[in-house]
Amino acid sequence: MKKGIAEVPGILCGTAFAGIKRTEKPTNRPDILVVVTEKSSEFAAVFTRNDVKAAPVRVSMEVRGKVSGIVANSGNANACTGKRGLSDAYEMSKLTSQLTGKGKFLVASTGVIGEPLPMDKVRKGIAEAVSNLGEARGEEPARAIMTTDTFPKTSFKEGNGFVVGGIAKGAGMIDPSMATMLSFVATDADVPKELLERALSEAVDVSFNSITVDGDMSTNDCVFLLSTGKSGVKVDERNYGEFRDLLTKVLEDLAYQIVKDGEGATKVAKIVVEKARTKEQAKKVSRKIALSPLVKTALFGCDPNWGRIAAAAGAALAGVDEEKLEIYIGNYLLFKGERASYREEDVYRYMKENKEIEIRVVLNQGNESFKYLTCDFSYDYVRINAEYRT
Amino acid sequence: MKKGIAEVPGILCGTAFAGIKRTEKPTNRPDILVVVTEKSSEFAAVFTRNDVKAAPVRVSMEVRGKVSGIVANSGNANACTGKRGLSDAYEMSKLTSQLTGKGKFLVASTGVIGEPLPMDKVRKGIAEAVSNLGEARGEEPARAIMTTDTFPKTSFKEGNGFVVGGIAKGAGMIDPSMATMLSFVATDADVPKELLERALSEAVDVSFNSITVDGDMSTNDCVFLLSTGKSGVKVDERNYGEFRDLLTKVLEDLAYQIVKDGEGATKVAKIVVEKARTKEQAKKVSRKIALSPLVKTALFGCDPNWGRIAAAAGAALAGVDEEKLEIYIGNYLLFKGERASYREEDVYRYMKENKEIEIRVVLNQGNESFKYLTCDFSYDYVRINAEYRT
Repeated sequence: MKKGIAEVPGILCGTAFAGIKRTEKPTNRPDILVVVTEKSSEFAAVFTRNDVKAAPVRVSMEVRGKVSGIVANSGNANACTGKRGLSDAYEMSKLTSQLTGKGKFLVASTGVIGEPLPMDKVRKGIAEAVSNLGEARGEEPARAIMTTDTFPKTSFKEGNGFVVGGIAKGAGMIDPSMATMLSFVATDADVPKELLERALSEAVDVSFNSITVDGDMSTNDCVFLLSTGKSGVKVDERNYGEFRDLLTKVLEDLAYQIVKDGEGATKVAKIVVEKARTKEQAKKVSRKIALSPLVKTALFGCDPNWGRIAAAAGAALAGVDEEKLEIYIGNYLLFKGERASYREEDVYRYMKENKEIEIRVVLNQGNESFKYLTCDFSYDYVRINAEYRT
Repeated sequence: MKKGIAEVPGILCGTAFAGIKRTEKPTNRPDILVVVTEKSSEFAAVFTRNDVKAAPVRVSMEVRGKVSGIVANSGNANACTGKRGLSDAYEMSKLTSQLTGKGKFLVASTGVIGEPLPMDKVRKGIAEAVSNLGEARGEEPARAIMTTDTFPKTSFKEGNGFVVGGIAKGAGMIDPSMATMLSFVATDADVPKELLERALSEAVDVSFNSITVDGDMSTNDCVFLLSTGKSGVKVDERNYGEFRDLLTKVLEDLAYQIVKDGEGATKVAKIVVEKARTKEQAKKVSRKIALSPLVKTALFGCDPNWGRIAAAAGAALAGVDEEKLEIYIGNYLLFKGERASYREEDVYRYMKENKEIEIRVVLNQGNESFKYLTCDFSYDYVRINAEYRT
């Protein structure tokens, strides 16, 4: 069994199949998830920056103090649903508090935009999920939040006396596609609010925010982090770094799984920009390359088309100096101020035979670096997204 | 015969087939274009903002004073070609001056990045094009700069005593794909340098720069505007507006043709954002929608998926207020703070039966508007760009 959020001491999960999604295909994948903490817990959260925020995001953003857990559904995003959407999101949160006899609940939704939630089904689903709290283990909580995901995403790491475990869902190409990205993570370390927020912010920056998730976040994106404190290990300035690093590993693991499961993706590419003047420059350049449809289609075609990489690097408008620029795919140097000497078929073979491709862009302007993860752009991406919904 | 730049009095065009492109397919489309003005002319130019600028762009940016015309090639972008590339671009310009016995020439290239120009072929081609100056009429000059274009792009408009005529090439999805966009335009009006530059800048803003061309301009993009003065009509502050408006019409016409010929495109979509607080807000929102792969794939699938439009509008981070937001496709109101009442199949039919789709987003926050043109995202886009080059 792959461990996830349910294996963090102090966490209990329940799921239910409520039949929320408008679909002709029968599915017995659950679509309601309730995550409960034994005792009320400190939490930290990161939300989409989109001006159009889904109702559950707006409700969760208002939550202050400690929480008793999370209630989430897939199959319907409860976004662009006006006042009714807000009241439905509030009800999901309140109903879970009542049924569990606990405190406040964060709420999250993912799925189709613009349809009202079928609240009859949602209410029954929440009641059922609460009634089987503790039964959803391993990958089961992650399965409840899947949409076009092809596999459940979980991660679990052990630190010095405490653990961090989490689940995530993501589909589409995340950033440009604005598909929803959700991630729920918990630790049994006892982390004060301020450190919890700082750790989440720092860990998100180099994980979810470097898989082209930021910028174009969807209406529903959110990352919730709960601290149950059940291990009794307190996190303070002394061991903060250790906690943040473990959290980062879990988020990086989940972020990697999201990219790997990108809609229609056949390859994961790591875009590493090195020797930049500033971290900001490295980030801008790696992000621009990671977002380029021409680079992504070349990845799909296993075409070592470094000209597209050079053009994307320059299009970041971050002060790239062509004369100093070096571009590598795998270990092959393709460009160094001008075309390097390499055999096209060698690089083609590297791209063909590997599922994970490294593109390394060396700016030779300083000592900073940044890494973005992206996936290729395939026929299946178009098929998945061009199909008529009903 | 469709008129273009060659029909502007004072302009002579010659073309040649030099066989520049590395291709197995034989082609008799010309790949060298020489545009000559009878007398040396004022000019204005707009160049790519990309940090990685092709050699011909760098050479043309240095040109001061009057010019005698333009020399251009397709099949090779002469980009990322180091010092040799710069010297090749200089040579193209100088050779054309020598062979025509005229003054300075602007230079432009489009095609594959990173390969040195086959200068033996280029020299012969320029000589041939100069020897047949005046013979290339109508669409022929535009054919010489085509790459993956499927049709030549020309436009010609008559004003009050003067004309504006031009050609363009563009492929890929322009902005995100960083395919090269070239446009050469001439007028027989006598326009002083300062007004020529102002008019070009203003006209480009609402034409080429509102088809998602700006931001991610390629290594090679440029727009050249020549004023032959042959009509004898002088443009000054009095009739400046008339000249700029005619120029704008020509550039809008060419820009429209570029979008229509987007790689794999089956539809053109006009993204109109209205009642914005500022022009800047309207532009940001329309651009974000125009760039969204999810909106573009929905266009391909004729899916009236207004949720993706709302999410993209919010992702522009331009202060869109969901409660005031209205979204139309064609004449159908789909969203007004929440889902409007419409029949999905009506909108589907509108999208299916029309090649030109209007998406109208009303912000209800002020009185400014902006319009972006975009195309859909199809299987063919992926096919065209994922194919291995050799």
